[in-house]
Amino acid sequence: MSVGILTSGGDCPGLNAVIRAAVFTGSKLHDLDFVGYRWGWKGLVENDVVPLGRPQVMGISKQGGTILGSSRTNPFDFGGAERVAEVMAEGGVDSLIAIGGEGTLAAAQRLADAGIRIVGVPKTIDNDLSATDYTFGFDTAVQIATEAMDRLRTTGDSHGRCMVAEVMGRHVGWIALHSGMAAGAHAILIPEQKTSLDQIISWVEHARDRGRAPLIAVAEGFKLDSMDDAHSERGLDAFGRPRLGGIGELLAPLIEERTGIETRATTLGHIQRGGTPSAYDRVLATRFGMTAIDMVLRKRWGKMVALRGTDMIEVPFSDALGQLKTVPQERYDEARVLFG
Amino acid sequence: MSVGILTSGGDCPGLNAVIRAAVFTGSKLHDLDFVGYRWGWKGLVENDVVPLGRPQVMGISKQGGTILGSSRTNPFDFGGAERVAEVMAEGGVDSLIAIGGEGTLAAAQRLADAGIRIVGVPKTIDNDLSATDYTFGFDTAVQIATEAMDRLRTTGDSHGRCMVAEVMGRHVGWIALHSGMAAGAHAILIPEQKTSLDQIISWVEHARDRGRAPLIAVAEGFKLDSMDDAHSERGLDAFGRPRLGGIGELLAPLIEERTGIETRATTLGHIQRGGTPSAYDRVLATRFGMTAIDMVLRKRWGKMVALRGTDMIEVPFSDALGQLKTVPQERYDEARVLFG
Amino acid sequence: MSVGILTSGGDCPGLNAVIRAAVFTGSKLHDLDFVGYRWGWKGLVENDVVPLGRPQVMGISKQGGTILGSSRTNPFDFGGAERVAEVMAEGGVDSLIAIGGEGTLAAAQRLADAGIRIVGVPKTIDNDLSATDYTFGFDTAVQIATEAMDRLRTTGDSHGRCMVAEVMGRHVGWIALHSGMAAGAHAILIPEQKTSLDQIISWVEHARDRGRAPLIAVAEGFKLDSMDDAHSERGLDAFGRPRLGGIGELLAPLIEERTGIETRATTLGHIQRGGTPSAYDRVLATRFGMTAIDMVLRKRWGKMVALRGTDMIEVPFSDALGQLKTVPQERYDEARVLFG
Amino acid sequence: MSVGILTSGGDCPGLNAVIRAAVFTGSKLHDLDFVGYRWGWKGLVENDVVPLGRPQVMGISKQGGTILGSSRTNPFDFGGAERVAEVMAEGGVDSLIAIGGEGTLAAAQRLADAGIRIVGVPKTIDNDLSATDYTFGFDTAVQIATEAMDRLRTTGDSHGRCMVAEVMGRHVGWIALHSGMAAGAHAILIPEQKTSLDQIISWVEHARDRGRAPLIAVAEGFKLDSMDDAHSERGLDAFGRPRLGGIGELLAPLIEERTGIETRATTLGHIQRGGTPSAYDRVLATRFGMTAIDMVLRKRWGKMVALRGTDMIEVPFSDALGQLKTVPQERYDEARVLFG
Repeated sequence: MSVGILTSGGDCPGLNAVIRAAVFTGSKLHDLDFVGYRWGWKGLVENDVVPLGRPQVMGISKQGGTILGSSRTNPFDFGGAERVAEVMAEGGVDSLIAIGGEGTLAAAQRLADAGIRIVGVPKTIDNDLSATDYTFGFDTAVQIATEAMDRLRTTGDSHGRCMVAEVMGRHVGWIALHSGMAAGAHAILIPEQKTSLDQIISWVEHARDRGRAPLIAVAEGFKLDSMDDAHSERGLDAFGRPRLGGIGELLAPLIEERTGIETRATTLGHIQRGGTPSAYDRVLATRFGMTAIDMVLRKRWGKMVALRGTDMIEVPFSDALGQLKTVPQERYDEARVLFG
Repeated sequence: MSVGILTSGGDCPGLNAVIRAAVFTGSKLHDLDFVGYRWGWKGLVENDVVPLGRPQVMGISKQGGTILGSSRTNPFDFGGAERVAEVMAEGGVDSLIAIGGEGTLAAAQRLADAGIRIVGVPKTIDNDLSATDYTFGFDTAVQIATEAMDRLRTTGDSHGRCMVAEVMGRHVGWIALHSGMAAGAHAILIPEQKTSLDQIISWVEHARDRGRAPLIAVAEGFKLDSMDDAHSERGLDAFGRPRLGGIGELLAPLIEERTGIETRATTLGHIQRGGTPSAYDRVLATRFGMTAIDMVLRKRWGKMVALRGTDMIEVPFSDALGQLKTVPQERYDEARVLFG
Repeated sequence: MSVGILTSGGDCPGLNAVIRAAVFTGSKLHDLDFVGYRWGWKGLVENDVVPLGRPQVMGISKQGGTILGSSRTNPFDFGGAERVAEVMAEGGVDSLIAIGGEGTLAAAQRLADAGIRIVGVPKTIDNDLSATDYTFGFDTAVQIATEAMDRLRTTGDSHGRCMVAEVMGRHVGWIALHSGMAAGAHAILIPEQKTSLDQIISWVEHARDRGRAPLIAVAEGFKLDSMDDAHSERGLDAFGRPRLGGIGELLAPLIEERTGIETRATTLGHIQRGGTPSAYDRVLATRFGMTAIDMVLRKRWGKMVALRGTDMIEVPFSDALGQLKTVPQERYDEARVLFG
Repeated sequence: MSVGILTSGGDCPGLNAVIRAAVFTGSKLHDLDFVGYRWGWKGLVENDVVPLGRPQVMGISKQGGTILGSSRTNPFDFGGAERVAEVMAEGGVDSLIAIGGEGTLAAAQRLADAGIRIVGVPKTIDNDLSATDYTFGFDTAVQIATEAMDRLRTTGDSHGRCMVAEVMGRHVGWIALHSGMAAGAHAILIPEQKTSLDQIISWVEHARDRGRAPLIAVAEGFKLDSMDDAHSERGLDAFGRPRLGGIGELLAPLIEERTGIETRATTLGHIQRGGTPSAYDRVLATRFGMTAIDMVLRKRWGKMVALRGTDMIEVPFSDALGQLKTVPQERYDEARVLFG
């Protein structure tokens, strides 16, 4: 039996560990064959395949990114289930393992509904899928952001500056929440909690008054409660294009102006998602990959693997698609105690 | 109200984050005062205290070890509940937060039974407490062991050697299981699974035959199934004292002799438990510390904080004392698929 | 005898190791006393001092930043040599150790000329002082930038993207040169070498044609050879202020437009200068601090410590001030072989 | 023209960066072809070759170990220059680049004397070659040892223990000297300086009396001045074989017995030589590899590349063979100021 694997959407530390574990387990234990589709759904609809056996996956667990490549192609823009079935038949591929985020799983759902034999592995560096406690990549991103903030803090301390670290999280604030808590930030600003500049200033000044160099963790999707105005005022650059700077670079001068504390912003950007996965993510991704094979063998089409406590479980794709897992009020309140 | 804090047993990355979160939350939100007892129960029975306010805990989350010091002293060897009550009364201390492992929690249980107002925070770098999904320190230890094995692997590959990495785990194999899985070890040897040398040799040779330099993760408490003999033969050094070398150094020459593959053992030892905690451990420890304050305020004496899924819960001390959380057969079987 | 120490200018990993070594050596071996001036020259002209003995410097070597704080205050804006002499006399301070970069050493030179007993320790994270082979901080910055590029590369590979990493270096390209070489960048762009966009495009396309995801290391001070125009066109934001985005964010869309390769820029910013110093920097800084004490004892006023090969030497301040140590043509040509 | 490359002796972080730089430069700029000999001289005398072009060396700079494999085979045990010339002629290989330590360079010297066209790249993780300021691998080893000691220190502090870290260095103490200085060790024990147990005890007690948890960095080749006796007494295990434990495990109980301070030894072992090279080592190794090609083109047979200050120079093999570069008295005295 031949299984096709693809990785779709933004890259994430741990993708290769999923691939390795699936191929290793499937080929060693169950005599499955594998092919890899290149660049996500794009490779599937274009029948762009690479061989995928144990030699190809040897030692890749600790490698960031995905050896298969990824893209944001939607298969339903290129023939949908019909084209997918055609390509699979051509290549003698019986079933698929799709590794990806919400968009990927939505497409997988539609393919499964149309009869394609497909199981899923959830991927979201932002930790925004409600069907699973965590997915791989999030821990690595939090670790990188935390280490960066540890560094920024020493610079802040040396110059009596306020340091603003902008981390990933367009729609949810999990990375900011965890890295901010780990690094001892004096304010954590997340999309789920619109906040006034006054409140932020109060936290900053409170930290300063205790002799600390204020450190702020802000998710890229955070908005000031007055943001609609501020944004329209400042949101465009000299050419009328969306301004390059993110929320961190927006906040820094506002804080400096109001408090008189020299303030610097750093946008961590892509370094949060690349590179060697943490051990936590490698273990989780490996277990996900092995469970995906188990699901293929048990023909659990239309389902994806998930983590519940310390257990591997399986859930319908739809569970992952319902709604974004945002930071609940109580987790924010818990963290907020440490602000200021 | 004044709260005493102590850390007891072997050190663990995250202890300081617990202390900081407790002091910070308690003093900022609830006007609690704190004292720290030095060197675990020892400081309590000897009334050896240090002041513990926000200045003392500033910035300590990312610091390994414990600023309070620790020891393995048992309070019941030095006056027990009576002496503890006396010291607390003397210092005007109303309640205690004890941070420690099984031994510490057993003492805490007895003190609670005798009327001491005490809550607990579980600490076990080995992940062997059944009442909680994880505790802080374990993730850091796994990460350090994984990085070390990543390094050992390149040396193994360069020389065609078999590398044996001995990691912590006297009674349970969690660190070996997770780090071995993360590092792609060709065999993971844990106390829960006595294994024959023949079986190990077979994994080693199988890896070698696939062109790999075999990598073995072995927990310090692992025993060969023939170990009683081997141990009595080899377990003592020239002076009749217990031999210095651990199981890794015992296995290496046996593997080399049987396979002809040059084999080297490395004992990671104390580097696994020291140093900066991972972001995961800092977040978990911070939440533990904050929840402990919540429990003090709600007078949940005789209980300890625990992690269930992503939630903070509380459980009676006795839940932590019942039985060691060993690696279950299914988790071992899952990992074993990747051996050889 | 009492010695005053101050750190001035931008912070740099290793400053604390200099302070610790000086205080430790001076007080242990030679019975010197120390005071620390806060916030660089500012603390000196304002007589803002902290005690500086072995307890204060215990364990600080591995701490980023400077425990004394730093600023860019120029003592000659606040009374110059006269005021400095007055403050020193008031505090019974006989001599000074000034740790700083070009600006700091220029002020130190003028003070020395006016009779102040002062020796210097060079500090430049950019490696732009010609009087010394290296200074502390540079190695750490290069290491951080290299690790970040290692991460960016896996993201680039996974998406077939061109990744642009902007690193420190306003006037010289040393950090870009070393980190780019270490990370295997396909182009290294430095202030010393104006380069045409055509040339950059050619390197990018060449890397792409060999199946690589192009990686570019660019120093913040790099200029396209057509830069005067481009800059005046693009250099201001919507409010007429200097634009926030740096050269990396300027280059990325230009490259994407010309090559059709999706291109992303990351500005590493302040994370390059904070945090735990590398072992290399700790050793160098420690030796600098010890040598500074030696120079104080031998009354080598007006001189600073420097590294020549593996030796500590001393040079007049003026040697450090003559001219910027830029990347010589032959070092650039050497690196350039690996481009494309 | 075809060039053969081999790596010989113990592995070292940076070997792959040398190989990559040589192949990349040689093939891109000078149309050279390359073959790699497997497992050092063994592959040369057995004509065990692998193709070595740009695809094979892509992205290997940051990989520890050597993609060619290594061994301690001496070519003069297997036919010497005659056999080497024969194999080279058979494969159409004109010249050799040998990357290795003293033994390798000694063999290379004899081959060069016999007319083999060979240049060398020095490799010594111990920094014991007098002809070059540094070689690659040393910086990585020092960094790993320093990080390990940073970790050990927190454990020592938490338990009031003395921690002994045994690092590499059978004949010279450079790794111990640099990592001990970087980590702030209270004693650094190196082969060049026989020391009495009394002296060590005095440093340990002095550190303890200042409230520190004593940290000792000891090179594996260090000997107590009374060592001949102690060693003969304790040097054999229960089977009359050389005892497994190193000097660290010998010292720990002696220190504990004399001072009453609980003392623990950790032997860092092979983790010091494996894994991702530091940026410093990657840059140095890359420059070595490029210079080696330059030397091949200029027919500098019998010479090896070396670092002098910041420059690449070339020296005759014999310069590297003369004598071990030991830690000079003044560098030890400098470090010793910080002991205790």
